[in-house]
Amino acid sequence: MNTLQHLIDIGSMDDEQLVHVLDRARAIKQDMGKYRNALDGALAVNLFFEPSTRTRFSFEIAARRLGMQVVNFAASASSVSKGETLMDSFRTVQAMGPDVIVFRHPDNGSAADLAAHALPSVHVVNAGDGSRAHTSQAVLDMMTLQENFEDLSQIKVLISGDLRHSRVTHSDVQAMRKLGVGEIRLASPAELRPGDETAQGTVQFDDLDEALQGVNVVMMLRIQKERFTGDQAPDQEHFSHQWGLTAERLNQAAPGCLVMHPGPMNRGVEITSEVADGPRSLILQQVANGVSARMAILMTLLGQ
Amino acid sequence: MNTLQHLIDIGSMDDEQLVHVLDRARAIKQDMGKYRNALDGALAVNLFFEPSTRTRFSFEIAARRLGMQVVNFAASASSVSKGETLMDSFRTVQAMGPDVIVFRHPDNGSAADLAAHALPSVHVVNAGDGSRAHTSQAVLDMMTLQENFEDLSQIKVLISGDLRHSRVTHSDVQAMRKLGVGEIRLASPAELRPGDETAQGTVQFDDLDEALQGVNVVMMLRIQKERFTGDQAPDQEHFSHQWGLTAERLNQAAPGCLVMHPGPMNRGVEITSEVADGPRSLILQQVANGVSARMAILMTLLGQ
Amino acid sequence: MNTLQHLIDIGSMDDEQLVHVLDRARAIKQDMGKYRNALDGALAVNLFFEPSTRTRFSFEIAARRLGMQVVNFAASASSVSKGETLMDSFRTVQAMGPDVIVFRHPDNGSAADLAAHALPSVHVVNAGDGSRAHTSQAVLDMMTLQENFEDLSQIKVLISGDLRHSRVTHSDVQAMRKLGVGEIRLASPAELRPGDETAQGTVQFDDLDEALQGVNVVMMLRIQKERFTGDQAPDQEHFSHQWGLTAERLNQAAPGCLVMHPGPMNRGVEITSEVADGPRSLILQQVANGVSARMAILMTLLGQ
Repeated sequence: MNTLQHLIDIGSMDDEQLVHVLDRARAIKQDMGKYRNALDGALAVNLFFEPSTRTRFSFEIAARRLGMQVVNFAASASSVSKGETLMDSFRTVQAMGPDVIVFRHPDNGSAADLAAHALPSVHVVNAGDGSRAHTSQAVLDMMTLQENFEDLSQIKVLISGDLRHSRVTHSDVQAMRKLGVGEIRLASPAELRPGDETAQGTVQFDDLDEALQGVNVVMMLRIQKERFTGDQAPDQEHFSHQWGLTAERLNQAAPGCLVMHPGPMNRGVEITSEVADGPRSLILQQVANGVSARMAILMTLLGQ
Repeated sequence: MNTLQHLIDIGSMDDEQLVHVLDRARAIKQDMGKYRNALDGALAVNLFFEPSTRTRFSFEIAARRLGMQVVNFAASASSVSKGETLMDSFRTVQAMGPDVIVFRHPDNGSAADLAAHALPSVHVVNAGDGSRAHTSQAVLDMMTLQENFEDLSQIKVLISGDLRHSRVTHSDVQAMRKLGVGEIRLASPAELRPGDETAQGTVQFDDLDEALQGVNVVMMLRIQKERFTGDQAPDQEHFSHQWGLTAERLNQAAPGCLVMHPGPMNRGVEITSEVADGPRSLILQQVANGVSARMAILMTLLGQ
Repeated sequence: MNTLQHLIDIGSMDDEQLVHVLDRARAIKQDMGKYRNALDGALAVNLFFEPSTRTRFSFEIAARRLGMQVVNFAASASSVSKGETLMDSFRTVQAMGPDVIVFRHPDNGSAADLAAHALPSVHVVNAGDGSRAHTSQAVLDMMTLQENFEDLSQIKVLISGDLRHSRVTHSDVQAMRKLGVGEIRLASPAELRPGDETAQGTVQFDDLDEALQGVNVVMMLRIQKERFTGDQAPDQEHFSHQWGLTAERLNQAAPGCLVMHPGPMNRGVEITSEVADGPRSLILQQVANGVSARMAILMTLLGQ
């Protein structure tokens, strides 16, 4: 297998690499204790220029479970306010000798840009940049699909909600294409549709009920209010009525259809509590898989 | 002894459990180095929804002194701002596999609520919720009393100040009752009196000089300005005059009366520097005991 | 050698101690892995009352590279807002049993003040206080000079920019005097000149071109905008024109003149990108040296 220097987006991995990371993630989950000194003494820096709980937490726990040291960078309390450029902040952190820089930033392409300027000893992991890449989320989502379905080519997966602003859409669609998911459906109001490149190879719907017919998995996304300006965000009540996943609506899907959500959830908006907490929900399984998936990513990058 | 799954409030421990934690805390203090790998590899998450220095710090140091990994959650930079419920934040953190969640929150009863939804593998520690529980503070305060008095049934302890808003009042009174402290006195202005349940089994005063007569220990509490709205907080100068502990006032207590304060102190308001820094002050002993007390709590919960 | 209990400013070290720390820093850099358990189990607290990225990060990485535990204090989320004095915050942290307190604060002399009240078991490291001391920066800067010049008595070093507000000026000048640097030059607009004590033993200029003639090293400092009130900060364009280091200007220096900057840089203001990223720039070497220098400081204080 080709070695993987950085993890920028799903497209930066060849098929074999993606399969390898996923195999390893499932193996780690079976026996996490076995890996507790796997990366002993290595240093990870979380370089986050956006607030994040679950992703930063999950990476930090993953790194610590492997015996790594972790240092957290809080962008607001930083040199950024003293006029330093992003590249200088990155180079400064890099010069301090970390093995891995886990990076999150609002700008599209910023992770790739940093990786292009990284020292040979440093591995960059994209923990979400711009509106298009949430690479580690896609890895954990694929891991969750694999745990629940033996043959991904036999299933239909629907992603519904704010497809335009969620970085999950693009990364998950890319990953599902690579793994040969049977059918990928996207459903959203017209104004929240993703770009053409993301939509490639998918079937698009503008009605949730229609889109749900016969699917085996539905992934719900919240409205990313923080990415709208002024009062341009969709009216919550209206959105919930048209686009909220209820138990009743879910009955239109294939029998046993499973439900995913990358979190954070806005209960009562894009998903009801009945569905979120119901027997078909994989939501907490996704969270748990996040730690194993990120351990697998870190180990693969560091050649272990 | 019954095993202790969570530490929510003093009432959630039976007498034997409280005594056990206290015995262990004093033993740890004698030889801290002996325990440095006691909980090696276990993971503690500090889930704090309120600012806190000393409590978060003390728990973090306690956990690290036992060889635990610690990950800190900053509520402001979190999913909370994206509309996630407290229970979902908790469940998300819990799904990542911590052994202990150390929790602080402004709402009464929130720690018990989370504990009721915890996985069997997770132990919840209340690091302060609402205005009534500051459980680990009560443990360290009792430890401090035990270090200074051989027989608690022979002493009179006074708590004075903002009894209504301090979470220390309720927890300390509960703990002192359990340990059979000879007499528990409470003194405060009428508007800062605690609720009836807290006051049960205590003697209440509305004059500090009167309350001080013959006590062996006085615990001073600051005015919790951040819990008042508008200008309802007591006038500082007036409060200090009536309720501030001075060296002169302290002379009314029993000979050798000791002084405690959970901190942070407002010097010159509820306590003068002469008293706070004087030979009878146990204030820094309390802080030091906090680390041992929290180590004992963590070890007891994790069955070590 | 006399043992060093605290590191407050360069003046608090005798010549032998400074030389010892520098020798050790260079040795550590050669084989960092050798020291990974050197301070195993010791506890460092970062007590920062000002935002800082690089210094806090560098100290945290240094401590972890030595096997220390590190706990970070965020001043804004702290007891300070509840009215606690700095000394009480310090005493509280100290009572929790750290071995080292790494301290940053806006007030001149505050680190020395805390050190005077420290327990014998606690070592205070000044990570920058007031406008005059940035002790660890001076150590890493001297280390960088030593790596590039065999005999410091043969070189001329210029510091240029906001000499008044940068804490680097005073500490670096002190250190260069101790190490016998051949000639120390200072250049700045009149209103940004340092105090007399700092300027002692230096040659002062009010024109950058003149000051550059024949120097072997130039250290550029940014305008510390956050230390000016209102619109008193120099006009950026005007400043850049008169005081910005360009490749052209640099040609006036001695052949091979090297360029340093403590960061964060304001590119296009006090330094052009061509110079900052050019072959004579030691800027990232300074950052890398910061970790070794701080490891040497921690080891020296802890008697290793």
